[in-house]
Amino acid sequence: VNDLRDAIKAFTEKRDWEQFHSPKNLAMALSVEVSEVVEHFQWLTQEESRNLPVNKLAEVREEIGDVMIYLTELADTLGIDPVEAAKAKLRINEEKHPATLVRGRATKYTEYS
Amino acid sequence: VNDLRDAIKAFTEKRDWEQFHSPKNLAMALSVEVSEVVEHFQWLTQEESRNLPVNKLAEVREEIGDVMIYLTELADTLGIDPVEAAKAKLRINEEKHPATLVRGRATKYTEYS
Amino acid sequence: VNDLRDAIKAFTEKRDWEQFHSPKNLAMALSVEVSEVVEHFQWLTQEESRNLPVNKLAEVREEIGDVMIYLTELADTLGIDPVEAAKAKLRINEEKHPATLVRGRATKYTEYS
Amino acid sequence: VNDLRDAIKAFTEKRDWEQFHSPKNLAMALSVEVSEVVEHFQWLTQEESRNLPVNKLAEVREEIGDVMIYLTELADTLGIDPVEAAKAKLRINEEKHPATLVRGRATKYTEYS
Repeated sequence: VNDLRDAIKAFTEKRDWEQFHSPKNLAMALSVEVSEVVEHFQWLTQEESRNLPVNKLAEVREEIGDVMIYLTELADTLGIDPVEAAKAKLRINEEKHPATLVRGRATKYTEYS
Repeated sequence: VNDLRDAIKAFTEKRDWEQFHSPKNLAMALSVEVSEVVEHFQWLTQEESRNLPVNKLAEVREEIGDVMIYLTELADTLGIDPVEAAKAKLRINEEKHPATLVRGRATKYTEYS
Repeated sequence: VNDLRDAIKAFTEKRDWEQFHSPKNLAMALSVEVSEVVEHFQWLTQEESRNLPVNKLAEVREEIGDVMIYLTELADTLGIDPVEAAKAKLRINEEKHPATLVRGRATKYTEYS
Repeated sequence: VNDLRDAIKAFTEKRDWEQFHSPKNLAMALSVEVSEVVEHFQWLTQEESRNLPVNKLAEVREEIGDVMIYLTELADTLGIDPVEAAKAKLRINEEKHPATLVRGRATKYTEYS
């Protein structure tokens, strides 16, 4: 992840693009890239989404790469380590959704059923 | 990253939530979490977005944590390593936007100016 | 629609918020509101999404209202009539996806099946 | 708006696409189309976003058309009138943000400044 962060930084600096890469703009770019992932799944059933043909999977992999690039750059610009942020958030989520209470028929998921 | 992936997997399994976490649904959840990042920046100037007060920065860090969690889980469900996918995509981007051609007044950015 | 547009304009002017409502910022706000719609559907099956309980439907109606508000304001700021834009785009889509060719097993939808 | 709704319905039925157009899928498609609007603005300054060149404005108009199409279809599938929903939500927003309290230096907008 540190290698990736440094490679992205070098990529952006070499092109003199830091001026465009404010956190506001990077957040927008991140949302655009995520939509390119969503686009692959919008008309699929959940079952189909679990069984992508290899050529589609390769396309989704590229889009996930773009999402990871912008997420890493946005986090770095704000002085945040995304992996540490995720681990910290996972601990918060552990407390918010105790396994003993939400198992299987989680309130979170079953309010519609 | 591998630790994070394993922790997320354990979190989901302990709650019996794999049934809800199809790639289609995880892509939707990822887009919802990204919007919670975007929400913090929507009314700010670019300058303000580079200088978040500490309490706002802490909130954005949590949202970035959530984005990283869903991105890691979506990628894992598809058998994709998000860091490797990003490195591969960065190499593609290097060729698509050669530094000598796009430096500073990049076509990508200057078509409006 | 014209009444709605005028009511939104009055709402924004009365609060002196035009300064924040650039097309860039309104596009971000539009995307945030759409995610609040998506959030209601992210863990549902397609079947469940067709049969929302009345309390959920009322919440989704409010979110759709917010999306329509920002879409109307963004379009107005750019001098665009959203209903006319939709009618014009529908004619383009008619030509792009001729009914005789795509009926039922539309390429657009069946590339995965 | 009623004409638009009927034209979209005819378009979808003629192609036998209702089977794919669950509220869940339409919400995803709506978010994808909104991102195509956001994409036009992601690297622009707010000032630039207020002064789009005519060729860009024509492209944004098409994307806004697509957003309006999916919003209308999603609302119709749920039995919601988007214009009425927006008017009702605007009345709620009027009460939530009283003009006398939020004028100019609105709390909503000034928490960062």
